[in-house]
Amino acid sequence: MPSNGTPHFERRLLNKIQSLTGDAPIRFVFQDEKGVLPFQKEPVDTVLITDRKTLVAMALNPEVGFGDGYAAGTIRIGGDLIRLLENLFYSGAATGRGGLYRRLWERWQDWRQANTREGSARNIHHHYDLTNEFYKLWLDPRLIYTCAYFPSPSATLEDAQQAKMDFVCRKVQLRPGERVIEAGCGWGALAIHMAKNYGVSVRAFNISKEQIQFARERAKAEGLSNQVEFIEDDYRNISGTCDAFVSVGMLEHVGSENYKELGAVIHRSIGNTGRGLLHFIGRNQPRPFSRWIRKRIFPGAYAPALSEALQILQPWNFSIQDVENLRFHYAKTLEHWLSRFENAAGEVEKMFDAEFVRAWRLYLAGSLTAFRVGSLQLFQVVFAGSERKQIPWTREYLYRDETQTREESRWIHAMS
Amino acid sequence: MPSNGTPHFERRLLNKIQSLTGDAPIRFVFQDEKGVLPFQKEPVDTVLITDRKTLVAMALNPEVGFGDGYAAGTIRIGGDLIRLLENLFYSGAATGRGGLYRRLWERWQDWRQANTREGSARNIHHHYDLTNEFYKLWLDPRLIYTCAYFPSPSATLEDAQQAKMDFVCRKVQLRPGERVIEAGCGWGALAIHMAKNYGVSVRAFNISKEQIQFARERAKAEGLSNQVEFIEDDYRNISGTCDAFVSVGMLEHVGSENYKELGAVIHRSIGNTGRGLLHFIGRNQPRPFSRWIRKRIFPGAYAPALSEALQILQPWNFSIQDVENLRFHYAKTLEHWLSRFENAAGEVEKMFDAEFVRAWRLYLAGSLTAFRVGSLQLFQVVFAGSERKQIPWTREYLYRDETQTREESRWIHAMS
Repeated sequence: MPSNGTPHFERRLLNKIQSLTGDAPIRFVFQDEKGVLPFQKEPVDTVLITDRKTLVAMALNPEVGFGDGYAAGTIRIGGDLIRLLENLFYSGAATGRGGLYRRLWERWQDWRQANTREGSARNIHHHYDLTNEFYKLWLDPRLIYTCAYFPSPSATLEDAQQAKMDFVCRKVQLRPGERVIEAGCGWGALAIHMAKNYGVSVRAFNISKEQIQFARERAKAEGLSNQVEFIEDDYRNISGTCDAFVSVGMLEHVGSENYKELGAVIHRSIGNTGRGLLHFIGRNQPRPFSRWIRKRIFPGAYAPALSEALQILQPWNFSIQDVENLRFHYAKTLEHWLSRFENAAGEVEKMFDAEFVRAWRLYLAGSLTAFRVGSLQLFQVVFAGSERKQIPWTREYLYRDETQTREESRWIHAMS
Repeated sequence: MPSNGTPHFERRLLNKIQSLTGDAPIRFVFQDEKGVLPFQKEPVDTVLITDRKTLVAMALNPEVGFGDGYAAGTIRIGGDLIRLLENLFYSGAATGRGGLYRRLWERWQDWRQANTREGSARNIHHHYDLTNEFYKLWLDPRLIYTCAYFPSPSATLEDAQQAKMDFVCRKVQLRPGERVIEAGCGWGALAIHMAKNYGVSVRAFNISKEQIQFARERAKAEGLSNQVEFIEDDYRNISGTCDAFVSVGMLEHVGSENYKELGAVIHRSIGNTGRGLLHFIGRNQPRPFSRWIRKRIFPGAYAPALSEALQILQPWNFSIQDVENLRFHYAKTLEHWLSRFENAAGEVEKMFDAEFVRAWRLYLAGSLTAFRVGSLQLFQVVFAGSERKQIPWTREYLYRDETQTREESRWIHAMS
């Protein structure tokens, strides 16, 4: 579409966009067939906008305008994408608030993405049913799509995902013969790991059809079909009781309006004597995900402040035992994913198209940046029923030799 | 005072008191000069009420009536006090809600104990200025009046208090030359420990005159007067900046109405790049301390739910790094204190009187019980400014050999 605007108008839009980034060392440049319109400033990285529609979209809604323009190829980055995103994050441009019109539009979007039972199914399908083949290109072989735990920063992704699963199992102190419910089980790696290595039986829930099918096949291949049941259903329909309730990376899709119900589900599962773990992306303060992320990548997603997530547990008198923040581990996990994704970009483009590749590059790079700069956090919360008496005396057992820990009973019977 | 009531009236009061305890294996018995009025039930422990005024008080306000009656000696326990208190806690009798009259009276009490600057001074004086000689009879030699950390349950109290101070220093990763502000420093043990063993300079605040005097003398005797400054002032008057903000056992006396101001104090101390630790008695759910404890022992005290305490940090975009629940360590600490207190009961009675001894026995035993059964929790919360980049990669360093940890740099510079 040829540009009909005057350079004056375009300069004003550029000025507005530039002003949103404060002192960040970024130069915004507009170029169409008429020539180049740079903004005069000491530059480090350059954002080249090659389309007037994108320029207008950027000025009206910077998050979505930037994301969509980058994906469409009408925004090109001169310099390093991660460094540019870090500078954008620090400048606050990625988190600014807009005017009335934008806020009304956001309300509508939020309503459209509400996590009702039907809404959740639609939202989850949008992201997780992109085909298993796609995720196989850049996740680890077990398809674990949540933050890993790197015992040291140089650990491999595979080792770090293994360590994460062990960390979760040990934090909830699984013992052979116990029953576990997992809410939001992805492709089933953790459920299978728990059954195989900790001798527990697992009922694992997920509303993504493709993931559940994959998980069932893996359990069958491992000979664990009797020990792990994969159930294609919403967490709100979880029934039955268990000794430990575990949820890794589902809370982001629950939505704070459903925390009360999730708490009720957990309480009817473990009662006052069980224990559980919630692993989720969080925030220092209540704030929605980037608008672009919610629009294009994760409809309906919300990362709560820790105080908000505690509203799931508090009404049921659950006792918070341990909270750990692993945000740098998620940044490291995303470094691995982004690197693998880049290596597979050609294949991804064949599966989808170049716009999809750019959108996902931006999503992965933006998430990496958000965890690095602290715009996002990763919390693991361990909790116990109000009447549970078997609480570890200290957390030392988590950091000792694993085989030693597994063999020893580390329970303290605090009361007679 | 001779009883003029009919046995029928007294029986009704006993019935009411007994009904509050549900199925708890406790028998309430009334005995005055006219004879004995037992309630028929399979007994384990017996509560003997020997005064009609106490019987009425118990029926109207069980918490205060029981506490005051026990202290006055008009309630006597047949059996084990701790076991009886545990049964009372589990029965819910210690936490029940009363009628309108009682709630109005409670409002008035709360108002009278409000933690304004003047109110805090009065409330703190009530408890902490009972004379240092009193606390020397049953605390450890350094007079540490907060939850210890027992590396193993059999550690001595002295070793456990030493371990607690090291645990706090290592959780905030103190390094030589850094500046620390401590809010609510008790008799100064932690401030002196930090200066002596971690090479930091400390400004420590407290509004208890007796404690500050004692702390200053100790710092002088240790030759640390240049490194540790003890300031007799309210936490709201803390000025200046520091690298780490530490508060151990003060939050209970702050009152949730002042959390916003405490957060502002912390933020102006450490800014966006420092870190801090809050160590405090908490709850699974918002709920006031026992009425008797607030009336007789800790006026103005409040133990927050974790979600409430996070309201101190959230407005300032602080990042929660680590939360640990050490409630069994407080139960163990209280076992030591109660045992020492019993050994010194004769001397305490000479300092005060028999009623004081009974009141403090009940306070220590009741607190012990509350931590055991989970009515109270003990939280250590480690947090960092939103722009802090030096975050430990894992928590493993907390559990490795101490000398090794101190020598090694355990910092991960997460960003270039």
